[in-house]
Parts: sequence; structure tokens; C-alpha cells
Amino acid sequence: MWRTHTCGELRISDQGKKVILSGWVQRTRDKGSIIWIDLRDRYGVTQIIVEETTCPSEMVQITRSLGREFVIQVTGTVIERLSKNNNIPTGEIEIKPEEISILNGSKTPPFTIEDETDGGDELRMKYRYLDLRRGTVRNSLLLRHNMMQKTRAYLSNADFIEVETPVLIKSTPEGARDFVVPSRMNPGEFYALPQSPQTFKQLLMVSGFDKYFQLVKCFRDEDLRADRQPEFTQIDCEMSFVEQKDILDTFEGLARYLFKEIRGVELPAFPKMTFADAMELYGSDKPDLRFDMQFKNLTSLSQGKGFVVFDQSEVVLGIVVPGMAEYTRKQLDELTEWVKRPQVGAKGMVYVKYNSDGTVKSSVDKFYTEADLTEWKNHAGATDGDLLLILSGKDAEARKAMSELRLRMGESLGLRDKNKFVPLWVVDFPLLEWDEDTQRFHAMHHPFTSPKPEDLAYLTSDPGRARANAYDMVINGVEVGGGSIRIHDRSLQEKMFKALGFTEEEAKAQFGFLMEAFEFGAPPHGGIAFGFDRLCSLMGGADSIRDFIAFPKNNSGRDVMINSPSPLANDQLDELSISVKSKK
Amino acid sequence: MWRTHTCGELRISDQGKKVILSGWVQRTRDKGSIIWIDLRDRYGVTQIIVEETTCPSEMVQITRSLGREFVIQVTGTVIERLSKNNNIPTGEIEIKPEEISILNGSKTPPFTIEDETDGGDELRMKYRYLDLRRGTVRNSLLLRHNMMQKTRAYLSNADFIEVETPVLIKSTPEGARDFVVPSRMNPGEFYALPQSPQTFKQLLMVSGFDKYFQLVKCFRDEDLRADRQPEFTQIDCEMSFVEQKDILDTFEGLARYLFKEIRGVELPAFPKMTFADAMELYGSDKPDLRFDMQFKNLTSLSQGKGFVVFDQSEVVLGIVVPGMAEYTRKQLDELTEWVKRPQVGAKGMVYVKYNSDGTVKSSVDKFYTEADLTEWKNHAGATDGDLLLILSGKDAEARKAMSELRLRMGESLGLRDKNKFVPLWVVDFPLLEWDEDTQRFHAMHHPFTSPKPEDLAYLTSDPGRARANAYDMVINGVEVGGGSIRIHDRSLQEKMFKALGFTEEEAKAQFGFLMEAFEFGAPPHGGIAFGFDRLCSLMGGADSIRDFIAFPKNNSGRDVMINSPSPLANDQLDELSISVKSKK
Repeated sequence: MWRTHTCGELRISDQGKKVILSGWVQRTRDKGSIIWIDLRDRYGVTQIIVEETTCPSEMVQITRSLGREFVIQVTGTVIERLSKNNNIPTGEIEIKPEEISILNGSKTPPFTIEDETDGGDELRMKYRYLDLRRGTVRNSLLLRHNMMQKTRAYLSNADFIEVETPVLIKSTPEGARDFVVPSRMNPGEFYALPQSPQTFKQLLMVSGFDKYFQLVKCFRDEDLRADRQPEFTQIDCEMSFVEQKDILDTFEGLARYLFKEIRGVELPAFPKMTFADAMELYGSDKPDLRFDMQFKNLTSLSQGKGFVVFDQSEVVLGIVVPGMAEYTRKQLDELTEWVKRPQVGAKGMVYVKYNSDGTVKSSVDKFYTEADLTEWKNHAGATDGDLLLILSGKDAEARKAMSELRLRMGESLGLRDKNKFVPLWVVDFPLLEWDEDTQRFHAMHHPFTSPKPEDLAYLTSDPGRARANAYDMVINGVEVGGGSIRIHDRSLQEKMFKALGFTEEEAKAQFGFLMEAFEFGAPPHGGIAFGFDRLCSLMGGADSIRDFIAFPKNNSGRDVMINSPSPLANDQLDELSISVKSKK
Repeated sequence: MWRTHTCGELRISDQGKKVILSGWVQRTRDKGSIIWIDLRDRYGVTQIIVEETTCPSEMVQITRSLGREFVIQVTGTVIERLSKNNNIPTGEIEIKPEEISILNGSKTPPFTIEDETDGGDELRMKYRYLDLRRGTVRNSLLLRHNMMQKTRAYLSNADFIEVETPVLIKSTPEGARDFVVPSRMNPGEFYALPQSPQTFKQLLMVSGFDKYFQLVKCFRDEDLRADRQPEFTQIDCEMSFVEQKDILDTFEGLARYLFKEIRGVELPAFPKMTFADAMELYGSDKPDLRFDMQFKNLTSLSQGKGFVVFDQSEVVLGIVVPGMAEYTRKQLDELTEWVKRPQVGAKGMVYVKYNSDGTVKSSVDKFYTEADLTEWKNHAGATDGDLLLILSGKDAEARKAMSELRLRMGESLGLRDKNKFVPLWVVDFPLLEWDEDTQRFHAMHHPFTSPKPEDLAYLTSDPGRARANAYDMVINGVEVGGGSIRIHDRSLQEKMFKALGFTEEEAKAQFGFLMEAFEFGAPPHGGIAFGFDRLCSLMGGADSIRDFIAFPKNNSGRDVMINSPSPLANDQLDELSISVKSKK
């Protein structure tokens, strides 16, 4: 037997018990006549005390030979500690050993196995199995485990059925790039890995499964930005005989349950905001509502006074930064440089300082009178001591830049508290977006999303104007989930494909099975999917999803630990009837 | 609102309630003045009664227009039925409608949506979404859903952590063929889909996760026999600081829990049988213990009497078929033809009928005296009325053929009751098998399996003789799971790769990351994996796994519903830096 107890469970009430523990040497402290070992496993740390005077010299010798991360087994007796440690649950006891054996040695790890490690990103990725020993990473994955169990429990209790949909499916030209898999048995043909189980979950509704869920791996072959992974996990759900309200209620319930169970947080009620309002007030379809700073439209107030920058702008937008009138010239210059970075994209920034003493100072004093600036103040709802920051330009660009600036100011003011959670639903998205490159409409959500009933006619008359019966759950400025009521009628689905520029043949070749299914009694249905990696990192109060994924890939899509992807042998390629093209 | 209740929940206590139901038309019965609709959803069937005298004529007209599988919505009042149906939970009530609307029509399904359908396999695969409407298939998937929830609950409660391992991993030459995925970002390189998360779960043990589980999709590009799928699901588990006993106890516990929870069956204790005994007594490493018929070795008793067939055989094996002495000549001839089929592979069959009247009749009467045959009878433990069936030949072949014959006789005698479950553990498998084709040893389980400590020396001296610390869980002749204690020591792992014919370079290129991990404090560990699809079908008392998989592929690996796999566009191939070889 390797152990009778874990390293996290012995208490003062176990005093006198003879126990066997196994685990890793976290550290040893050698005070000459006494050596302490901190023995670690997943469950905790237990202290072992080796005394020169009472322990066999062989044991003392073994103890002195122990390096960090050695795996050892200790047989001994639970005794009360002289000097107790109230920071850990096992802190009142220690083990007086009768025998210590080394189960496996360890080379010196390339970085320290501590919460604050000295290892860089690439090194920790290469030795991910060591990185996973660190308490912070382990706790992130424990949180993920708990999230999975609670999510399934909630949905199962609500009569959802977990159904596994296939991983080897069919490539479709819509959306992001597919990963594909050559079929050996069907030479020249390929499977694709699912970007989502969208069509399958809709077919399950046609099958009458009524409520479906799955925690499912999905795949997108995109150029990886930081914090994107080629494989990711979704909480994928679909329901029949539902309207938008039913879905929002169900999944607001799930979110409330998870935050309560995992974080002990009671989420406030989820307000609904239209996409149009979100863009108007926050310049983003995923506004961070932990703080205010709504956009104030200063266009009409600011134009026609001779300031050509504003006069030539589609829109002039301001945000009030509370209490920040004392920002220095240097700080304001830095902010101006920041908004001009290509990622933000503003041409410049205008500020007005409404000082506490009632004076006003702005970067456009020569164009605007104090009365003008007071008018702005009143319109924007600023008070003395506040700073008004103004961006202008084309509508979409100014809003995007202002949204970035707003988030940055929220950050500076400490208003984006990771332990505060403010949710909302964003609804009434546009159904289609015009794509300049391909000169055609793209589905904003996906081609199966239903238009709002009252906008149905636009689908043929003015497609860009049609709103979708779609919704996103946003928490703290993160889109944690999104979904829609689906089309369940063949002729409407055909119209949608037509609006997206599919020929009839293309639509049939790609999605004929789904449209045919709609002719055999398809119920009204809708669903939602949550980005599970992101939801976990949000729940854990982290910025990155990486530590919530056991074995993530780097930004080139590589697993540097196992060194994958890698070349294949020629006979393997031959069997698959494919060859690799030489590099240009 | 689409519905206030499901079609399975209304009872006599709901009498008088105004309700809205939505669902599918299972059937209508038109008796002239009254039309009944059976309205179906996942939860049940509710009867709607449409009376010509009391209902608006428009409603009667709509009702008469309803076809099977139409989706309708019914608003009405719950009333007591005149003629009750005790076979269904809603059988005491029916709905008197105020309004009936058609939500979606349906073409006539290509096969009947009934438990006993008239649809053939291929047709049902093409319209799988309709096949899934049938009660038997839905119940199979509901059973699977329950199995998933219960499995995770059991393991979570036992401190196992669910960790998702990657799907895009690295191809290895060991074992079955990998499915591969070309990497666009790393031209000329490929990911592989996992045949199992074996190395990752071992790394999680090195990471100190202590107890891991996952219900995980795995992939094997094998030529598909009936009832094999290219993608399948495993319950995958691994534990640290465990010996064989700990694993057997834990997972015997899981099996007992599942059978109790899902089927209400208390499994008997799991006996342990060595691989050697299983082959000796049943000619199979997965014996079906629902019935006896152990092999009786008649070699020494039957040789040297002039019957050249037996004299030239390595082994002569008999089984006693109880009470079947009255088998006719025709039946015995048929059995003889059956054992000569290539799938069974015997050259012929000898029988001895120990008739109820004490007489004996055999097909080898001219070689053996009645005393000889009585000696066989005693040795085999036959009694009057029994039939002794005898096969002979090379040891392995005769055992295989006899195992098939034994199963067939068990089947004929009705001894393989699908509602009876008899489990066992088969242990002490050989570590290696000699492969004649490649002239080298293969790992019987996989290259990470530890030899039994007492057989360690054989690994270099006589590799074929070493037994593995491996175990299979077998229920009713089905291998539902298997696993082993793993190697956790680099030098032993190197020896193992050497015994398998790997060069040092090959071992390092393929599994260097694992061997390196063993040098950073790897704990003793072991694990197991269960074939979840098979376990579900066993639990459901079914022969095939197909109905326990929502969207299975056919024997050519095709999904005939979505028509996958399929060719890719050339620009997609170009992006992936691969080309398709023209067919020879």
C-alpha cells in the first residue's frame, strides 16, 4: 500500500495514528539536529520531522539526499507540532517517521514549482507537466472541473439530455477555416472537425430531443491571436418550442447558479440592451458595465464653431472621467499617444478639464468659448473635478476607439474589479453584415439564425436592415455566450442562403440534409453556446485562458511539450492518398 | 408561449386546467363524428379529442388535414377520458381543444416512426434524425445520458478530477492507424487525433493530479468491422500511488454503482481469473460466465487409440452441453458445418451422445470403446442426457474454435440472458505478443504497461514470458474495460521500448517527452479505460452499439446523412500545402 492518507487530511485529532504518506518533496529545512520535510500532494502539505537524535542515521542520510520534487513514501506517527502553522489545515501536526523511502528521484526542475514561478512562458509550456504542479494552475483546473460538474448538473436537472455529436464531420465554406482529416477508406475525401455542433444540435431538435446539451471540443483553424486556441470547449445547448425569453431565462439561471456555486456570488438581474443601444452608449457589443462612462454625443453641440476636425467628423463623442480633472499635461499627452496606436485608431484626442475650482481648461480653447464648454459639461453630465475626453471621426471608427479609451480609463480608475461581476444580455443584433472583400453579406451569427419576425420582409427588400433573433450573454465586457432562435422552415432557410449569396446548388450541396430535415416536422427551436475556457477564466478572475486549459498550444498552434504537429512518414501519406507540396 | 406543459405530464389531477401543448402527430383516428390525435413529444403522448358537434368546423378541417409527424400546437382544457388507457401515464385524460395550429408540416417519413420500424439500415442512417424519433433509439440515448451523469458523479465523489486532454496531438507509429490533420500554420506537418489520451493522463499523474478521469472521444482509422466506429467514447481514468488492488476496487465499485443505478441490478462480486486460466477453461480472454461449459482437456485420454485426427492434434478439447444428447443427426451435421466456417476455423467436430437411457453414441465409435467414452464422460463431468462436443488441432486454433462453439451452444440453450450480468476481472496478461509479420514483439496492452515485478528479469532474458500488471473487466463475454499499472521509471521504459524493437532515437523522437517527465519525480501510477459505447449497449441489453450513438458512421466510415467525407476545394488543399494523389 502506497499510502493510508493524503498529505491534506491529517489533523490534531489523528494524533498517535500510524500512517503512510506518499508525495513530493516541496522543500526540506535542515537545522542541523532537525530536518523538516514539506511533503506535498494535490490535497495539501504535511510536515515530516526527522531528528538526528531519535531517527536512524540511515534515515537522516536519506533525508539529507532529498532534492526538490523527489517522490517519497513516509511511514510514521502523527504527533502534535511544537510550533503550529495556522495557515494550513495540517498545521497542527507533523509526522515522526519510522521509514522514509525514495519512490522516484527528480532532476532539478527548470523553474521553481511555486505560485510565483521564475519560469518564462515557453519554458513552462515545454514542461507543462511541471507547470501543472503549481498551486495556481492546479486550482484553475480544479475550478474548471467544478464548473463542468455543476454545469451538467444544472442542465440535467432541467431535463436537458447530453448527446455526443460527431467529431468527424463535413467541411463547409461558411465561417472560419476548418481543420480537415483525410479519409483513408474514401481516397481523395476529407472529414472536417466541427467549429460547433450547430447542424447536429438542430437535427436533434428535429428528432424531438427537446433539450440538448454537450460540453464539447470545437476547432477553428484561425491565425492565433494571443489567448485563442485552435481547439476550445463550448457549453453547447439547444431547446425546442422556445422563444427568446425561455432561453434567456434558462441560461441566466445557469449563470446565476454557477456564480453562486463556484464563487459564492449572487449575480444581479441581467438587464437587456439592444445591439443598437450598446453601440450608441458603449461603442461595443460587449460593454463592460462594471463602470459607467457612457458615451455622450457632442456632435451637434461641437460643430459649426470653426474647429475643422469636429466639423468634418461624422460623430463627436465624449466620456466623462469622474474626478480626473487634475490629470497632468504629461498624462494627457500619453493618453493621446495611446489612442493614436493602430490598435485603437483615433487620429487625436480632445480634453476638457472641469477643475474643482470652477475653471475650465481644454485643448480646444481657441475654438470654443467657456459657455460652449459649459454646454458640453451639462450635456455630458460632468461636474467640477471631472475630465471630459473627446474623440471624433467616422462613426464606427470613433466608437471603436472610444470604447477602447473607456475601458482603459476604467482600468486606470480601478473600476474593472475582477471580483465584481456585472452581466447583461445584448439582443437584436443585425442579421447580416456586408463584407467589402467578398462584396456580399455574411451572417453575423450564422446562416441558421432566424430574423426577428417583424423584420422578415427586409430579408428580400433590404437585407442589411433585418435584425436577428439573436442574443449574447456579456459579463464584465466579455462575451461569454451567444445564440439565437433558429430558422425551422425550409423556404425561409432558402431565402437566407440566397441573401448570403449561395446558389441553390451550393446551398443544397452543403446543407441539403438540414433543409430536407425541416420538411419532416421541424419544431420551432433555438439555442446558445458558451465559450467554456473563457467562462472559466472569468470565473477564476484571470486574464488569460491558458491556465484553465491543461495542455494549451502556443500562438503557432504548436504543442511544444510533445512537439506537435510533426511530419508524417511517406507510407502514411501514401495510405491516405495525399502528398505534401514542397514549400515555395 | 409554445406550451405550458409537455405531452407526458398531465394527469387526472390536472382536470379542468387550460393548457397549451406542442408536439408531433403520432397518429389520428377518425371515427366520423370524433377524431382523436395522439400528440407526441420526448416526454410522452397526450390524446386530443376533436368532436364534430362541439368544435368549430375549421378546427375539424385542420384536424383532418394532419399527417403523421406534423408539428402542431393545441390550446385546450384537460378533461377526463371516457375510455381510459392504463398503459400510458397520461391515459386518464385527454385535451378538448379550443385551437389547433399547424407549426410545421411533414412529408410522409420514408419509414414508420415506431419501435418496430419498416426501415432498412441504410435508409435509417440517411434519415437518422427521423430514426432518432423512435422510442427505442431515444431510450438508448437517454440511457447513455444517464450513464454519463452517473459515471461522472461517482468519479467526482471519489475525488477524481475531470481534465480535458487535447484532440490535436502527435502521430505515433504504435498501435492502430491514426487519423491525421494537416497543419496550415506549420506546412508539411500534421497533428493526429488521439487513439486514447494515454500519455497525457500519465503526464497528469506526473503533475500530481492524483486521480484523473474524462469521458473522451477517441479515434482509430481501422478497417471497420460491423459495430466498430472510427470515433468512439472512453471512460478514461488514471490514479497515482495505487497498486492493482486499488484500481480493481475503485472500478468494480463504479460498475456496481452503474448497474445498480441504471438497471437496478446488484452485481455479484467480481472474481479474478488469470489470462492463463481463461484461455485454459474458456479459450478466450473475455469468457462469458453466464453459463458454465468449461473446456475439458481430453488430449491424453483420447490419443494413442488409432484415431489419427486426435493423435496428430496438439490438443483435444471437449465441452459438455447439458441435456442435449437428443440432438438429431441433422442438428449435429449443421453444427459441424458451422464450426468449419472460416470465422470459427475447425477442421471438423466429434460428438458423443450420453443418452438418457445409459447408451452412448459417438461419431468416433470405431476408434473408441464404450469404456473409453465412459472415461471421457467421467473426466468431462457429463451425465446421462448430455452431449459432449469435441474439437482438436493446434492449441490456439482449437481453443478459439471451441470458444466460438461454446458461445453458440450457450446461445442455443438460452443461457446468454441479456438481463443477467456476470462480471469478472481477467488479470496477468502476457506483456508482449510475438508478431510473425513484423518479426518483433508488440505490446499486448501498450508500451507503457508495467511488467509484474516478479517477471521483470524476463524482459531482457525471455520477453515473451513476462506477464503484465494488466487487467480487463469482462461482463457477459464483453471486454468493457482494461488497464494496467504503468511504468514510471525511465530506465524500465527504455528497456520496454528496446524489447519492442525501438531504436533509442525512435523511442526518444516519439516518447522523449514522457521519458523526460519520468525524471522529474513521477509517482507510481496506473489506470483503466472503458469502452463507453459498448458499456451502454451492454447495459441496455442490446447487441449493437449503433443505437447508443446519436450519429454513427457506416462500415465505410461514411456519415450518409450529411454525406461525409467529401472532396475539398483546391484552394483549401493549397492552403494546407497538400495535394490529393490521383487514384491508381
